[in-house]
Amino acid sequence: MTHDRYVVGVDFGTLSARALVVRVADGAEVGTAVSDYAHGVIDRVLPATGRALPPDWALQDPRDYLDALRTCVPAAITDAGIDPAAVIGIATDFTASTVLPTLADGTPLSLLPDYADRPHAYAKLWKHHAAHHQADRINALAEQRREPWLARYGGTISPAWQLAKGLQLLEEDPELYARAERWIEAGDWIVWQLTGSESRGVSAAGYKGTHQDGARPSTDFLAALHPGFADVAAKLAHPLTPQGTRAGGLSSRAAAWTGLPAGIAVAVGSIDAHATMPAAQALTPGRMAVIMGTSSCHLMNAERPADVRGMCGVVDGGIVPGAWGYEAGQSAVGDIFAWFTDTAMPASYTQDAARLGRTSHEHLSALAAGQRVGEHGLLALDWHNGNRSVLADHELSGIIVGLTLATRPEDVYRALLEATAFGTRTIIEAFEDAGVAVRDLVIAGGLARNPLLMGIYADVTGRPLSLIASEQGSALGAAIHAAVAAGAYPDLHAASAAMGGVHANAYLPDPARAAAYDALYAEYRRLHDHFGRGGSDVLHRLRWIRNAAVSGA
Amino acid sequence: MTHDRYVVGVDFGTLSARALVVRVADGAEVGTAVSDYAHGVIDRVLPATGRALPPDWALQDPRDYLDALRTCVPAAITDAGIDPAAVIGIATDFTASTVLPTLADGTPLSLLPDYADRPHAYAKLWKHHAAHHQADRINALAEQRREPWLARYGGTISPAWQLAKGLQLLEEDPELYARAERWIEAGDWIVWQLTGSESRGVSAAGYKGTHQDGARPSTDFLAALHPGFADVAAKLAHPLTPQGTRAGGLSSRAAAWTGLPAGIAVAVGSIDAHATMPAAQALTPGRMAVIMGTSSCHLMNAERPADVRGMCGVVDGGIVPGAWGYEAGQSAVGDIFAWFTDTAMPASYTQDAARLGRTSHEHLSALAAGQRVGEHGLLALDWHNGNRSVLADHELSGIIVGLTLATRPEDVYRALLEATAFGTRTIIEAFEDAGVAVRDLVIAGGLARNPLLMGIYADVTGRPLSLIASEQGSALGAAIHAAVAAGAYPDLHAASAAMGGVHANAYLPDPARAAAYDALYAEYRRLHDHFGRGGSDVLHRLRWIRNAAVSGA
Repeated sequence: MTHDRYVVGVDFGTLSARALVVRVADGAEVGTAVSDYAHGVIDRVLPATGRALPPDWALQDPRDYLDALRTCVPAAITDAGIDPAAVIGIATDFTASTVLPTLADGTPLSLLPDYADRPHAYAKLWKHHAAHHQADRINALAEQRREPWLARYGGTISPAWQLAKGLQLLEEDPELYARAERWIEAGDWIVWQLTGSESRGVSAAGYKGTHQDGARPSTDFLAALHPGFADVAAKLAHPLTPQGTRAGGLSSRAAAWTGLPAGIAVAVGSIDAHATMPAAQALTPGRMAVIMGTSSCHLMNAERPADVRGMCGVVDGGIVPGAWGYEAGQSAVGDIFAWFTDTAMPASYTQDAARLGRTSHEHLSALAAGQRVGEHGLLALDWHNGNRSVLADHELSGIIVGLTLATRPEDVYRALLEATAFGTRTIIEAFEDAGVAVRDLVIAGGLARNPLLMGIYADVTGRPLSLIASEQGSALGAAIHAAVAAGAYPDLHAASAAMGGVHANAYLPDPARAAAYDALYAEYRRLHDHFGRGGSDVLHRLRWIRNAAVSGA
Repeated sequence: MTHDRYVVGVDFGTLSARALVVRVADGAEVGTAVSDYAHGVIDRVLPATGRALPPDWALQDPRDYLDALRTCVPAAITDAGIDPAAVIGIATDFTASTVLPTLADGTPLSLLPDYADRPHAYAKLWKHHAAHHQADRINALAEQRREPWLARYGGTISPAWQLAKGLQLLEEDPELYARAERWIEAGDWIVWQLTGSESRGVSAAGYKGTHQDGARPSTDFLAALHPGFADVAAKLAHPLTPQGTRAGGLSSRAAAWTGLPAGIAVAVGSIDAHATMPAAQALTPGRMAVIMGTSSCHLMNAERPADVRGMCGVVDGGIVPGAWGYEAGQSAVGDIFAWFTDTAMPASYTQDAARLGRTSHEHLSALAAGQRVGEHGLLALDWHNGNRSVLADHELSGIIVGLTLATRPEDVYRALLEATAFGTRTIIEAFEDAGVAVRDLVIAGGLARNPLLMGIYADVTGRPLSLIASEQGSALGAAIHAAVAAGAYPDLHAASAAMGGVHANAYLPDPARAAAYDALYAEYRRLHDHFGRGGSDVLHRLRWIRNAAVSGA
């Protein structure tokens, strides 16, 4: 046995939670375990009663979070083979905005027997998309009243956030809304379960709770949305804890659940993508982290706030105290590539991939890798799941132009990879247009393992690409938060330097290819503006026609 | 044995020739046989010498035509079990413009030993696309000089036609050009082989040889293209024989080849698609025949000439004496559907289709058939092989808009079917805009067997659809020409009425679906005009970028 000290990061994802045991001194990942949520994403029927859910709903049962926690933390400690007494802190990160109604003591309403059959009693997952109408009204009213916080969200708040989902709760189940004494991010709720007392982080409140300059939207504003909505402020109100600081000590109950020592530091909750930042050593202003998975999240610190058109949000101390944390995103990235391999890869390619021992993505990437820029003659718009930044329009859809009888699957696949890179460049340019410099990129997430994709991103953005060293960026980042909360480092910067890791400049732009992509990107932007900024409204009209056809109108 | 009389139609296609033995009295098809061309399409190397061909070349060896003729006609007579003495006439139809250089006696230059290694000595197939530059110059000069014949071709003549291919011959192999005493359509050349003396049909001269109002383009015009090109007029010049009339009698030599009686009527040559018209009983003005295969050809008679924007051509007596025959086309139809099943149908669909005993097309059509109009949310432009009518721009390419992560293969497939129907509607509207009424449609060709596609065409065009009865429309049509040339009927109208056949009004437009398609067609036209008429030139720029990338620039 050594005298090493350890921390535990727990990453609560969409389908499972992962615990990671990390050595405080150097960030070494010494053990890990994953626990699936028993009910996963609840988007068809309530498991308790079989009640059917409307389209676009996505719920979770908060008991699943606790069950996963009780399983994965001890398993990770076992996997690490360490003495639990050497653990000095624990921290969590969570999908967001995933939000639930609770009693004043933190009991989720879904746990009350009377409410097991009430969809609104459950946690509304980040991808619950049924509060669009509420978001539209919030945006319209905020614009009309020139609410100062609106620009901090690029001019639009999302249907996925606390206000829209809360308003939906009020309007569709007022009894439950009245019963909800707290309206809380799951990422704050899980910390409450660990410490035994409520805490709320700066990050979730800022990015998902419309908290800016020390306040949430005014009672006036809330009442103008709905007279009964003024008191949502009270359901949300709580002093905010800065990121990377101690929310409390591990309660005896939670110590029993996890097998960790009671009283050790529990850090305030983080948003999952944001937790990646210290793990990727991406806290420096001008270094943009792109967390690339099914969708992409773009995060960056800067010294000042600026109004970046179409960004998701900018929050003072949102990622790390002392800097303004910016967030933007692409609503589908890996999802588009998976859609292509699932629905458009012919049998002969599937057979070849199997014969060569390649995944579908590896096979298509290998076939496309030798092409010169522009050789396939295609251009795509990456809006298969709408556009989050910079257009913030979920009703847009994808486009492919330039198809010929000679177009091959690897051509379309490469064009889709490129389209997402063009989407990222569009976001970078929105930052730079607002005076926020983007110097280089750090890539995290599973897609970082595709060298073709990474090379394209370097060439398209014209910026050096570094890769996060850890495969578990969020969990490692949470562990780094725990180390700071436990006092092992003076701040997140110091902890990130010691415990994070990055493969610096793994991909550098090639000048010739970058120049060739400039020409294609110019075409992308023309299509982007034509179809996304009013030149043609055909994508919206097709959506309306589709909706009318599906509903049988 | 009965006293029935018979005729033989021989359809010379791209890869094979088919002979069809038809009873004169009622058009009954009593025997048939197909012979493949030994060398098929020569588009990589000259078989005789292994010499490589440049891109976009497509040649044929005229000996293959004679070999096929010598094989398939006797085989068809055998298949019919009739006495060859009962055959009173033979006629041919041919792909066009397929054109070759010969000596004054009809000997193809490719048969001269010195020229076996010269690509320009061979027949240039209809899909030889290497004379683009020549066509561009012909069009530019004709427009500049306001040549009156240009409007008869919708404002553009094709790189596939006699003039462009002839100019390419002159410019790239002047020695061979000088040696070519005749420059002749393969469809006229094969008749020459049957009768022993040269004849030329009104149809090929009009549609492919720029012959209008009794003359070809002037010597002035030709000399302005290239000083040496003035004499192409002499290489082409010959009295023209009206369609459906006798070109001559079957020579003894050809009687020996075919086993048919010497001296029987040989009709003047037809263009393959055009031959379908009498077989489909589609000679009446206002009835548009759509021959749907890999590409589509739209043919219709009218009483007057009119300038239809972007049509392929209008020729006095081009289809039948006494009427103006109009032609338009879509450069890819079945080719687009085949491209989709070949390159974008996933393995699971291929397996399901096999399990259900369906072809790929049957499977996708079955999956797409139940959809309401607009339900898939997609819209496509059918320009995967450029646009023949009404834009006459071969550098356009295909587009799909409206893609989402929920888009399925059958959705895209249906959108592609619909796109080709929208393309046909665009052609119909170009006719009607020029004052040429299109009353109803007769569909011929293999795609007529897809009920989903036919229903879509009826709904999209808002017109009744009849289907040709014969599976061998061109060969039956050629046989009808033979019957008229032999004097069995006074004219093509009478022979068509007796020997042709149609399933009348097999598909009628559904008013509700037709109205729903009106909305989608309006969107199609907006995209069509935006990308095809200058709103955005992105498709051309992508082509240029592609060409530069491929050539390594």
